[in-house]
Amino acid sequence: MENGITTPRGFKAAGISCGIKKRGKKDLALIYSEVMTRATALFTTNQIKAAPLKVSAEHIKDGKAQAIVINSGCANAATGKKGLKDAKEMTKIAAEELGIEREDVLVASTGTIGTFLPMDKITEGIKEAKEKLSEEGGREAAQAIMTTDTFPKEVAVELKIGDKRVIIGGTTKGAGMIFPHLATMLSFITTDAAISGELLKKALKSSIAKSFNMITVDGEESTNDMVVILANGLASSKEIVEEDENFKKFSSGLDEVTLKLAKMIVMDGEGASKFVEVEIRKAKDSKEAKRIAFSIANSLLVKTAIFGEDANWGRIMAAIGNSGVKIEENKIDIYLGNLKLASKGCGVKFSEEEAKKILKEKEVKIIVDLNLGEESAKVWTCDLTPEYVKINAHYRT
Amino acid sequence: MENGITTPRGFKAAGISCGIKKRGKKDLALIYSEVMTRATALFTTNQIKAAPLKVSAEHIKDGKAQAIVINSGCANAATGKKGLKDAKEMTKIAAEELGIEREDVLVASTGTIGTFLPMDKITEGIKEAKEKLSEEGGREAAQAIMTTDTFPKEVAVELKIGDKRVIIGGTTKGAGMIFPHLATMLSFITTDAAISGELLKKALKSSIAKSFNMITVDGEESTNDMVVILANGLASSKEIVEEDENFKKFSSGLDEVTLKLAKMIVMDGEGASKFVEVEIRKAKDSKEAKRIAFSIANSLLVKTAIFGEDANWGRIMAAIGNSGVKIEENKIDIYLGNLKLASKGCGVKFSEEEAKKILKEKEVKIIVDLNLGEESAKVWTCDLTPEYVKINAHYRT
Repeated sequence: MENGITTPRGFKAAGISCGIKKRGKKDLALIYSEVMTRATALFTTNQIKAAPLKVSAEHIKDGKAQAIVINSGCANAATGKKGLKDAKEMTKIAAEELGIEREDVLVASTGTIGTFLPMDKITEGIKEAKEKLSEEGGREAAQAIMTTDTFPKEVAVELKIGDKRVIIGGTTKGAGMIFPHLATMLSFITTDAAISGELLKKALKSSIAKSFNMITVDGEESTNDMVVILANGLASSKEIVEEDENFKKFSSGLDEVTLKLAKMIVMDGEGASKFVEVEIRKAKDSKEAKRIAFSIANSLLVKTAIFGEDANWGRIMAAIGNSGVKIEENKIDIYLGNLKLASKGCGVKFSEEEAKKILKEKEVKIIVDLNLGEESAKVWTCDLTPEYVKINAHYRT
Repeated sequence: MENGITTPRGFKAAGISCGIKKRGKKDLALIYSEVMTRATALFTTNQIKAAPLKVSAEHIKDGKAQAIVINSGCANAATGKKGLKDAKEMTKIAAEELGIEREDVLVASTGTIGTFLPMDKITEGIKEAKEKLSEEGGREAAQAIMTTDTFPKEVAVELKIGDKRVIIGGTTKGAGMIFPHLATMLSFITTDAAISGELLKKALKSSIAKSFNMITVDGEESTNDMVVILANGLASSKEIVEEDENFKKFSSGLDEVTLKLAKMIVMDGEGASKFVEVEIRKAKDSKEAKRIAFSIANSLLVKTAIFGEDANWGRIMAAIGNSGVKIEENKIDIYLGNLKLASKGCGVKFSEEEAKKILKEKEVKIIVDLNLGEESAKVWTCDLTPEYVKINAHYRT
């Protein structure tokens, strides 16, 4: 399906430039539901939490929200009392403009840590965004939340609850500081499904565990990470109030949305030239599989070898050995796509030409068989390139 | 003092090219003591341990050794039974050449993981190295153990035990895969002091905790890390058999040697353009201080900002928040050298010009005051540059 957050019924959005970013780039987004929504959110586990997260966490306590105001270009993190006051002020201005309660407005920010918001620009920006709210505004909102992202990220899926079409739409921004839990990212999901607050939370948690928490760009978790879902019930579908067939359908739709968004984040990882899937098979338990997968996916040496299209599987072995999980060296098999590179902990003769061909592709699969049990895990990452360094060397300036 | 491992009395060394590396670069080193030494070693904690480590661990069990044979260009790791056989063969050939017992020869390797040693070249190489053993051979041995290092690393210090001059010399190689415990590195230390095996071990462990285990280049620990010390007693100094004044002197001499070598590794970190000291002050305990220091020192975003000479202290805050250690955001002060960037968790107005000046230097200090207690920790690292990525993209090829 085309479009994202404004595809479900009753959602409007806008994305405008209010002057936080240089050169007239879009930097303020507003998302609005015509009616009150059931809402739930997850926030970063970084101990340094940005001011907008604190305000949003307070406002979403009652399980309701009707609007979200987001700015890019300034994270409003490590900004103390003034930062908190500014974040509150953003919800107040948006509420006044929209004629709703301040407590029903959520707020998010992304950008440089440690600088204050230009509140006059933001005040004007919110007013302008309110004027531009539209049912076609999803794309512009997706653009306005970008930082070093190179493309806006949107997805929408349709499902049937009874005889009603229900839509789940989403947008996200990522690029750097990407590591679970919750990558450095903001993600906003909308749906016209009707669902209880409790089950909405359950579905979101489960989806995130399988998507946003399984990706890594650089092993960094930001101060501003946040995923929000708003469900306004305007599809007139039967309200989901128990874990029945309809809940399963909704959950799998949400899984699809979050997984697609998560993979887009990795594809657009800062400076990334390749999308990498790391799969650990036959582990003793899934937690261990995940830990080994992340040890490989976060290894700078593995990531640079993939950038260099070099089948240096020894670095994969070293990363496995570094994971902290007990393994048996002489049971490990390593594959690059379908090509076996190592068997029982030792290198096998493989065609360097074939390996090169696989590594030349835009998407690369690393598979490790531990041959210890029955569990598995998949994580997604990207390669590490000189471009990543360049992007991050001068981010603030 | 000039020179390194051959500065203490009775030690000879050689470094030659036997053809493992391309273009005639030195790739085989031999270190030999005229008399038997007290010896102790520490090995990587990576679960994937290279074959030479297994052999050396076995040979050093009796606390004695008289020679070390080392090759670069091939790590002999993830090489199974054949790798183990090859490592044993290396000690056998060296023992025959030197006319000593096989069990008194240690072996170490560094280079690409997962490839087999070219044993015919190595056999010839050991013979040639034996012929070239010399009391001036320290430098050539230091060159022969290099991989992506850009300069040989050597140090020697002199101390007095009673009225006797005692010397401790050392060499190391580092460059990539640098993270405690034991960086990706080999380090060989020689001394003509007389000291009991037990105290030698105690001194080495303590020195490493303060030096090699406090540095990081890329958060990777290799399969081949190893530090060895050989003490041959030829200074005719009083044997150190208890933790007295002489033990303290010896220990502080060893501290100096290991710290200098460790800092050289960071200075020569792959692609590094800057040497960075991260100091955490006023922590509740020293373990927590160390954990936060490493969270900052391993942060790609902090490292790239330093490369870009950008005083982006918000990333330091984010790394502190990510360390897993309980902190109080509104108590944190951050300094760049003497320049205060943040006070009580918030940014302060600082001169960007002054910050730029500090960041232009080759050595940069980051200081974080947690204001929670009395403990502190220092770690050393380098910046992350596009050059690091380039070096590691094509390491194997």
